Amino acid sequence: MAKSIGVFDSGIGGLTVARELLRTLPEERVIYFGDTARVPYGGKSTSTIKDFSDQIVKFLLKKDVKLIVVACNTVSSTSLEWLKNKYSLPIVGVIEPGVREAIRTTRNNIIGVIGTRATIESSAYRFAIHRINRDIKVYSKSCPLLVPIIEEERGNYEVTRLVLEGYLLGLKKKNVDTLILGCTHYPIIKDKIQEVMGKGVKIIDSASSVALEVKDILGSMEIPPPRTRTTNPNHAFYFSDIPRGFSQLSKRFLGHQISYTRTTL
Amino acid sequence: MAKSIGVFDSGIGGLTVARELLRTLPEERVIYFGDTARVPYGGKSTSTIKDFSDQIVKFLLKKDVKLIVVACNTVSSTSLEWLKNKYSLPIVGVIEPGVREAIRTTRNNIIGVIGTRATIESSAYRFAIHRINRDIKVYSKSCPLLVPIIEEERGNYEVTRLVLEGYLLGLKKKNVDTLILGCTHYPIIKDKIQEVMGKGVKIIDSASSVALEVKDILGSMEIPPPRTRTTNPNHAFYFSDIPRGFSQLSKRFLGHQISYTRTTL
Repeated sequence: MAKSIGVFDSGIGGLTVARELLRTLPEERVIYFGDTARVPYGGKSTSTIKDFSDQIVKFLLKKDVKLIVVACNTVSSTSLEWLKNKYSLPIVGVIEPGVREAIRTTRNNIIGVIGTRATIESSAYRFAIHRINRDIKVYSKSCPLLVPIIEEERGNYEVTRLVLEGYLLGLKKKNVDTLILGCTHYPIIKDKIQEVMGKGVKIIDSASSVALEVKDILGSMEIPPPRTRTTNPNHAFYFSDIPRGFSQLSKRFLGHQISYTRTTL
Repeated sequence: MAKSIGVFDSGIGGLTVARELLRTLPEERVIYFGDTARVPYGGKSTSTIKDFSDQIVKFLLKKDVKLIVVACNTVSSTSLEWLKNKYSLPIVGVIEPGVREAIRTTRNNIIGVIGTRATIESSAYRFAIHRINRDIKVYSKSCPLLVPIIEEERGNYEVTRLVLEGYLLGLKKKNVDTLILGCTHYPIIKDKIQEVMGKGVKIIDSASSVALEVKDILGSMEIPPPRTRTTNPNHAFYFSDIPRGFSQLSKRFLGHQISYTRTTL
């Protein structure tokens, strides 16, 4: 059996990244793990986030993956370098692909970043942008209510809009022309974010950049790509909890219905 | 050493119950466990909530507790009977004490209940009320955004108010005269809930009823109460994660600063 691509997230947000991987690399098999029993990670300490992601990487390694995508901005921001140093296979985060796309996009060199508390407090986006170009101004804002709003309050547009205005109007005043969605949940409300920011601001959702980076890395690896199949590869989706309403929720993120397995680490 | 009272919650909400226990039973030692690494439980499945609470009970038993208070409505609603059947020590939940107080309070026999998704979907409050009085009308509403709002958006009153109105106006229309706060987080915004519901509605926060029930049970147990001390008992507060800002947050819930220990189960 060809080795698979491992993808993990604290919950279901990473399915927006898995969706792009499936589109970009249709011949590859994806093994996804979402830590829904312990979601969200965004308000937790770095040391706990490291422990949890280490457990997940060990789980994926047992599933014979050749590359791991950390489809979670919180883990990418706080623990990616630590994981890369610990394990020898390629591990791809979501920060740098998004940052490169944002730098290609900005015209006025003022970039905004939104994410969870842990992501923003880590300054990982700011550091990644300044490693490439120190002249870019970076304004960031943690938006701790957006994940629960996206997961729980699907129809409540008034609350979503009011919360978004509270979070985003400060960034708008700073004249950012490019806004990085630093959380894999946020693409689900991309239209509403665009509305609040205004048409002139380009919204960067790093999922497609991540998929292209994975394609590049796989192309340079010695493992041969799987032979072309006539049927879809047999992807596997594992979650540490399957709460009520999970089927609809996961469909919103991946774009189609999946079958999934509950597993403990 | 006298045996202690174990208290646990998915996070810090149970500190509002611990606070009442410390007030009502100043001579008793409290051992608290808050599962901040896996909080919140409210959107998780019953089977996962049972696994987690079982691990916590085992942890508290190692600390030599004589009684356990489940200071979490989600666990009390979904797993209390299961825990009581499994363990032989007294285990006190937060549902029944609150229910008895609400039934004593209501004049028109119309009671409202708010809580997390898992609590409301379990119908535990409705069942507990109807076991005592089948003529009482019960209207309930799950409020999944309140916990993140309380923990994350301390100053954002406009969002809090708008979200509360969305959740509560339906209950208000049903003419409830008594509203049970079915989540140990909610006492923190009791004033705002009162404002939205109006002065005529009595808000029931079960923490003090729980403390009185614990006092009753201890009085009937064979274990002698600890001798009166001149200094405070040496309480212990364990948490599975200590995120940033935890010190201020826990102070809001317990009413005073605590020293705490991070521990894994």
